[in-house]
Amino acid sequence: MNQVSYANIVAAAQALQGVAHRTPVLRSRQADAASGAQLHFKCENFQRAGAFKFRGAYHALSRFDATQRLRGAVAFSSGNHAQAVALAARLLAMPAVIVMPGDAAPAKLEATREYGAEVVLYDRFAEDRAAIAQRLVRERGATLVPPFDHPDVIAGQGTVGKELFEETGPLDYLFVCVGGGGLLAGCALAAAELSPGCKVIGVEPQAGNDAQLSLRSGAIVRIPVPQTIADGAQTTAVGELTFPIMQRLVSDIVTVGDAQLRAQMRFFAERMKIVVEPTGCLAAAAVMNRVVDIRGRRVGVVVSGGNVDVARLGG
Amino acid sequence: MNQVSYANIVAAAQALQGVAHRTPVLRSRQADAASGAQLHFKCENFQRAGAFKFRGAYHALSRFDATQRLRGAVAFSSGNHAQAVALAARLLAMPAVIVMPGDAAPAKLEATREYGAEVVLYDRFAEDRAAIAQRLVRERGATLVPPFDHPDVIAGQGTVGKELFEETGPLDYLFVCVGGGGLLAGCALAAAELSPGCKVIGVEPQAGNDAQLSLRSGAIVRIPVPQTIADGAQTTAVGELTFPIMQRLVSDIVTVGDAQLRAQMRFFAERMKIVVEPTGCLAAAAVMNRVVDIRGRRVGVVVSGGNVDVARLGG
Repeated sequence: MNQVSYANIVAAAQALQGVAHRTPVLRSRQADAASGAQLHFKCENFQRAGAFKFRGAYHALSRFDATQRLRGAVAFSSGNHAQAVALAARLLAMPAVIVMPGDAAPAKLEATREYGAEVVLYDRFAEDRAAIAQRLVRERGATLVPPFDHPDVIAGQGTVGKELFEETGPLDYLFVCVGGGGLLAGCALAAAELSPGCKVIGVEPQAGNDAQLSLRSGAIVRIPVPQTIADGAQTTAVGELTFPIMQRLVSDIVTVGDAQLRAQMRFFAERMKIVVEPTGCLAAAAVMNRVVDIRGRRVGVVVSGGNVDVARLGG
Repeated sequence: MNQVSYANIVAAAQALQGVAHRTPVLRSRQADAASGAQLHFKCENFQRAGAFKFRGAYHALSRFDATQRLRGAVAFSSGNHAQAVALAARLLAMPAVIVMPGDAAPAKLEATREYGAEVVLYDRFAEDRAAIAQRLVRERGATLVPPFDHPDVIAGQGTVGKELFEETGPLDYLFVCVGGGGLLAGCALAAAELSPGCKVIGVEPQAGNDAQLSLRSGAIVRIPVPQTIADGAQTTAVGELTFPIMQRLVSDIVTVGDAQLRAQMRFFAERMKIVVEPTGCLAAAAVMNRVVDIRGRRVGVVVSGGNVDVARLGG
């Protein structure tokens, strides 16, 4: 039951039809010149709630049965998953509780509440958010929606890859950021079906290369919370479900540094006129800095989200 | 010969085919909710060189005869027209001289030179840029490309409206920013042909409402250089060619203040994840602040450009 296949991605696409945005694929002559390749940017920064996370969250919630819908969803997240679950729950008219750290950015707390979710705050230094979420599950009968390690979430994120290949046709490479691996695993499944020759490359922050270490050692490696501006990739380990898919379908994991992410964020704003958050810059920074030899190739680049304080774009 | 008709816009579209970007038309649920209308944003911030100006410049240069091509183009501008003429000249393999103030933003001087143009600097307080440009025309036999008051420029800018209506079908309203009126006149010609019932509204900065005064008084009104962050609309008068078109086809001119432009720039960056310069926010600020009663209507909004220091987006 925990297997995910391309058929699940097709089902997710149907569930998301008319609800999620079919985001544009942008081209840039300047980016092509800098990379030496032909780049196709799949822009999930234009997705509802500002990131690809909405796809997996909505798909998971849309598959709740009647009792689950009544009791609602629980999630713990200080980032895009929180807002994604909150928005999905509102659209599906069910309650949602999001467990967030008390010191989260006020804008993120506010956005989550604006979508109608109940926010339960916790002390990051004294309390365990997973335990709090489990208590809510027990007390309320609500269903926990994990940020990446769930078949419906992986299938939902896979619709990013499906839409990209449907628009571009087969590609030589696909670069995708890695946190817990939900987006990467989903996109790799889509690539295997729609562009079988395509090499899928995951991109991590240098400070937190646990997915790279895991893929190269053949077992999930757990690391301390990495210090990086790519807050969506500050995970300590990939998932039990996402890892086997990565082992089977991902060619390699590469890394980029925070300075490269800052430069990429600025390039997106100044040259391509789009707002992209640091995590959303991972894949693009790898191709623009030619971390892999992609000269002359047709390359897909997933831009995962755009939720960043705009005051930081000049940085 | 100075008349511009829809046939000229069709010819311009052919000249621009495969050269200018066919820019996307974006939608936003949040903008719809705020305006009470159904908004269609035509995003010329994604145009080559970052603004609609490339369309008119390239179209004008593409119609040069063999002698004109040899002698090249002259333009005076400290803004988007400078870079548009520079890029168009490079693509058409002809020389270009741009007359720019010595105190122009270094980034703009650099961008213009990067496109391969010769830059002639002048002292804004002691010298007359039009006289300098005329001397270059005399000495070199080069052709002056005016920023708005030229039939080929107006026809080129009209392709913005043509593409928009081709994508959206007929609209109830079209909002367009006004500086010299080239974009507004071109879009009004496109609207008259493709969406005859559509009301076309020009939008100016409050500090420089010369087009509004002109349209209401029936004669071109000239004002001192207005103090506004909308640097692309700091013109002192509309054109001899653009004004009669506006009189015939534009329903009204409305104004918005700099504070509204700043809020709109921030909305575009934070909510729609796009970088838009202050002048590019004029039309959107008018609809988002409901300056005209557009409730329930289908409304086109031209986003004219995205060339702004990204450090200012947080402002």
